[in-house]
Amino acid sequence: MIKMDLEKLFKPKTMAVVGISKKNPLSPGRIVLLKNEFEMNVKVYGIYPTGGDLEGIQLYEKLDKLPEIPDLVVIAVGPDDTLGYIQDCVDLNIPSCVIVGGGFAEIGGKGKKRQQQLEKIAFDNDIAVLGPNCLGVYAPPLVDTIFLPTERITRPPKGSVALISQSGGVLVDQFFNKFYERHIGVSTAVSIGNRAVVDEVMLLEYFSKVDPETSNIAFYLEGFKEGRARDFLKLAKESDDTVIVFMGGKTREGKVATQSHTASLAGNYKILSAAFRQNQIILPNSERELLTSLKVYDVLSHRKNPFGENVITFGNVVIMSVSGGHGVIASDMLKKYGLNAVKLERQEKKDLKALMNPSAREIASFNNPIDLTGSVVDTDIVDVLRYLSDIERIECIILLLLPYPPNISFQIGRRIANIVSMKNKPVVCFVPYVPKYAIIIESLELAYIPVFHSIKETVQAVSALKHRTRNENVKKGNLFWV
Amino acid sequence: MIKMDLEKLFKPKTMAVVGISKKNPLSPGRIVLLKNEFEMNVKVYGIYPTGGDLEGIQLYEKLDKLPEIPDLVVIAVGPDDTLGYIQDCVDLNIPSCVIVGGGFAEIGGKGKKRQQQLEKIAFDNDIAVLGPNCLGVYAPPLVDTIFLPTERITRPPKGSVALISQSGGVLVDQFFNKFYERHIGVSTAVSIGNRAVVDEVMLLEYFSKVDPETSNIAFYLEGFKEGRARDFLKLAKESDDTVIVFMGGKTREGKVATQSHTASLAGNYKILSAAFRQNQIILPNSERELLTSLKVYDVLSHRKNPFGENVITFGNVVIMSVSGGHGVIASDMLKKYGLNAVKLERQEKKDLKALMNPSAREIASFNNPIDLTGSVVDTDIVDVLRYLSDIERIECIILLLLPYPPNISFQIGRRIANIVSMKNKPVVCFVPYVPKYAIIIESLELAYIPVFHSIKETVQAVSALKHRTRNENVKKGNLFWV
Repeated sequence: MIKMDLEKLFKPKTMAVVGISKKNPLSPGRIVLLKNEFEMNVKVYGIYPTGGDLEGIQLYEKLDKLPEIPDLVVIAVGPDDTLGYIQDCVDLNIPSCVIVGGGFAEIGGKGKKRQQQLEKIAFDNDIAVLGPNCLGVYAPPLVDTIFLPTERITRPPKGSVALISQSGGVLVDQFFNKFYERHIGVSTAVSIGNRAVVDEVMLLEYFSKVDPETSNIAFYLEGFKEGRARDFLKLAKESDDTVIVFMGGKTREGKVATQSHTASLAGNYKILSAAFRQNQIILPNSERELLTSLKVYDVLSHRKNPFGENVITFGNVVIMSVSGGHGVIASDMLKKYGLNAVKLERQEKKDLKALMNPSAREIASFNNPIDLTGSVVDTDIVDVLRYLSDIERIECIILLLLPYPPNISFQIGRRIANIVSMKNKPVVCFVPYVPKYAIIIESLELAYIPVFHSIKETVQAVSALKHRTRNENVKKGNLFWV
Repeated sequence: MIKMDLEKLFKPKTMAVVGISKKNPLSPGRIVLLKNEFEMNVKVYGIYPTGGDLEGIQLYEKLDKLPEIPDLVVIAVGPDDTLGYIQDCVDLNIPSCVIVGGGFAEIGGKGKKRQQQLEKIAFDNDIAVLGPNCLGVYAPPLVDTIFLPTERITRPPKGSVALISQSGGVLVDQFFNKFYERHIGVSTAVSIGNRAVVDEVMLLEYFSKVDPETSNIAFYLEGFKEGRARDFLKLAKESDDTVIVFMGGKTREGKVATQSHTASLAGNYKILSAAFRQNQIILPNSERELLTSLKVYDVLSHRKNPFGENVITFGNVVIMSVSGGHGVIASDMLKKYGLNAVKLERQEKKDLKALMNPSAREIASFNNPIDLTGSVVDTDIVDVLRYLSDIERIECIILLLLPYPPNISFQIGRRIANIVSMKNKPVVCFVPYVPKYAIIIESLELAYIPVFHSIKETVQAVSALKHRTRNENVKKGNLFWV
């Protein structure tokens, strides 16, 4: 049992940075010092062998000269000096470190030996060391050890997702950028690098058992740390949070690539994915599916979840659109994502037809997919949605909302939101990603209704909700497999 | 042999609109009249039973009162009146019509009969009738019969792609929006509706044999018009243009949906797709793959194609990145898209290493994928790219360019473009879609280097280039199948 204090690593009150260059404004240590001083809430101290100051910030000669013992030290020096600083942390009882530099196991030989020394010191003294060879921690509003200039990257909004990545590049690009674009919120982001000490298992434990801000935990991994897969699966199964893993190195070509990158053994993906599913881990097939799942989970993690207690157990959906072609494209995807089109009864179709305005009534189609056509007006959408919400065998409504028909107003988002809030029936929307329709998108998102900008993502999101229901049922012991 | 004049339909000098409402500003006929008068180059006349004027435009009582015989008439009246106007077109020798209204075969019964009458008149008199039940034609800068207000939709840029869609909604949403986002250019866009007269075969013939602006022809179809599949395949095989078809109604669920939408029989998709491939039709598996293929074909259709005569025959690629994780994710996709990672030789790796700046040299990796790491500087990227361009067995370089490393400058796009222009080696780029990096994206796109914003699209684009090479080889009789 490790008693490392990860809370000090992710929620430090004070931190120190070693490895600051007075000459090079782009040196990692200097960037970390300045961005924490100017942009974050942690109290940050800079260490420089001869003291002095940098952009008005006083520098201290050594860690033991600081006015207080910091919770966290960020070490941005060469590999040999790094070990010296770790020893200083031991001597001063500093509980956590981020090592950004490389030169350890990833270069083999001498580096491997260095990493073993590092591991011994850290484990013997319960120091929570993140890295080496990593970007470290982004835990807003407290701390940010990502040594890329803030203006170069894009910060995601605050939210429910803990993000853990074995690749710093994937973290800041595939995750940060795309989270920002999709408004997916992050509680803490972690780049684990060589994961010499703090690894995926410790992080899963911390975020699922300790951190109150996190309710979804997402990993990009290229393989498990040796001997740690079993613990990971066990913790995932016990977790109340949603655990979702995207694997790099799934194919032979990808595995070869991981050898140069993280030297991970991705193992047999087929066997791994079966084990994941058995342990209630969600395993997206593509990066886009990962993002879609996280978006829908993050939106619905909000207290004002407009779906209430309603869950999607069987995947029985109705598709509602104003464009027949969109209905066809969405229908083509249902089976692949484990969803079924509910068959509407004769009387229901008659009722629905009667709700429509006279000029759309004759051309609208009330099979599933429902096509209200371009002659639709706001009240048609509202009335049909209300009617469908009361049909119990429909678990979810996929609403493909194209705002091009001239009689759809800019109030349509709000009007839809009101019905969803009243009825608690799961509704997942497609609205084209066009700036001029932001008012529609925003009115839905303000009511915590998930909105996507491609038909595929919309269908994937409903499938993600079904996956989660299944996992929760298994965890609760309601073992009806669907 | 039909002698219909599709050129008059797509490049009219004069047109008339019937079905204008003086009261309802959103009536389709009125929208078409005004948008052509104020936004397009065609000379447009409005027909109104009692004449008068509308927003300063003089209206004429009947078609035979116009000062000249128009090339095209847009008919936006009820189905019974429509037939009367078609007869007027016969009497006046008007060569082409767009019928926007419904009430024909799609409603069955009486409507089916109406459509048969329409077909008879049109075929007997060689009138090129588009529709009914369609949005018609968007042929910039001449004519736009799409009766949705221009400010509601998004117009794609001008380019090489003729777009033909059986669904008007799919045309203006899935195509127009996404073409705009991706800068894919359109020569002419056509919504075929019920395709009573002008159908997919006539359009394929026109765009591949007659229209000089088009070099790529893309279809969204939910099935072929009865008895027309064979002619379509034959024409596609003969065509010098790239023919690409995205099918709706591929699955059982989708097929059911097409029944309510276009009443098309999608047929067995497996059999169909084999026939497509045998006839050199490109068949994307997803809408995104369709867009990716069209983007790369459209960009390279430009006279300044920076790849020169170089084609991708075997799919032998090298992946070059500044993030190991991105390399892993791209490698995972190669096999699925029919591509292979070229193995770099010992001496080549040594040479590449020697080209790098000292601080990146030790941590960069020169296996394929190549990872230049976050310590990269501009000249590393330039020098490595130049070196790789000279290796003959590399057919294409996939460049995953993340601009986050602090020493990458905003000149990097231009510097890459210069090398590509010099070497003619196919290079397809990934650059994150972030407004602040627009200068990099733009400098590549100005040099006609295809840029994508997801790893998957980048890999799909290279695959699309390989498909096209294969098709061209088959057409030229160079029958080496790859």
